[in-house]
Amino acid sequence: MDQEELRQRLGAARVGRLATIGRDGRPRVQPVTFVFEGGALYWAVDQKPKRTQRLRRLADIAAHPAVELVVDEYDDDWTRLWWVRAAAEAEVVPGGEEAEWAIDRLAAKYPQHVATRPEGPVVRMRITRLSGWSALEP
Amino acid sequence: MDQEELRQRLGAARVGRLATIGRDGRPRVQPVTFVFEGGALYWAVDQKPKRTQRLRRLADIAAHPAVELVVDEYDDDWTRLWWVRAAAEAEVVPGGEEAEWAIDRLAAKYPQHVATRPEGPVVRMRITRLSGWSALEP
Repeated sequence: MDQEELRQRLGAARVGRLATIGRDGRPRVQPVTFVFEGGALYWAVDQKPKRTQRLRRLADIAAHPAVELVVDEYDDDWTRLWWVRAAAEAEVVPGGEEAEWAIDRLAAKYPQHVATRPEGPVVRMRITRLSGWSALEP
Repeated sequence: MDQEELRQRLGAARVGRLATIGRDGRPRVQPVTFVFEGGALYWAVDQKPKRTQRLRRLADIAAHPAVELVVDEYDDDWTRLWWVRAAAEAEVVPGGEEAEWAIDRLAAKYPQHVATRPEGPVVRMRITRLSGWSALEP
């Protein structure tokens, strides 16, 4: 997959799994909904019920900004498998124009956010490396 | 979700996403097929084409045994979302009885492995903590 295809698959994915390093130095991984806009990934802290855990994730990111997100599809037909990994540097976006714009983009991608607009904070993950693999072109 | 339900969902999942820490100290995340047997998770290094990258993962695990695997289902109906996370300590199983048994269990879960039996090595991940979340019982 060339860089253009990696970017296309990353942008089209509805969910990613985000790995971070906890303040205890252990890896953490969790599903996240996100948008890929302007070369960066954005996600936002929801309203309840997942708020507490997501705020804990922000403290982890402040201590360890290096993160990685994977998007992939699983199918029992293993010739259909592929994944795209984005290594990134994460940081919390101060409230304001960029945060509101990112929440607008999230609401455009996920209609669920129109009814319950995320309160934020918003996290920006600047991609440092994109890599991918597909069973069809190993 | 109680511990029994966490274990049931973990065992039934066809794919997990595994977070490890690289030798450079950065988090990595990748889809893995696995079995959950006897309180531990097992996965095996395939035959080609993913062999090189998987062997790199083994070196990461030797340097940083703390790992985390998440299983989850994504659906655009967010009332259906759930995830189960397993924090674990990973180590390579020396070749022999336990490794062969784990590969047999993988082949029983994934018929794809019958035709191309994984060569190994096999990684055992002893679970240290199971946690979960479901939108239906927040």
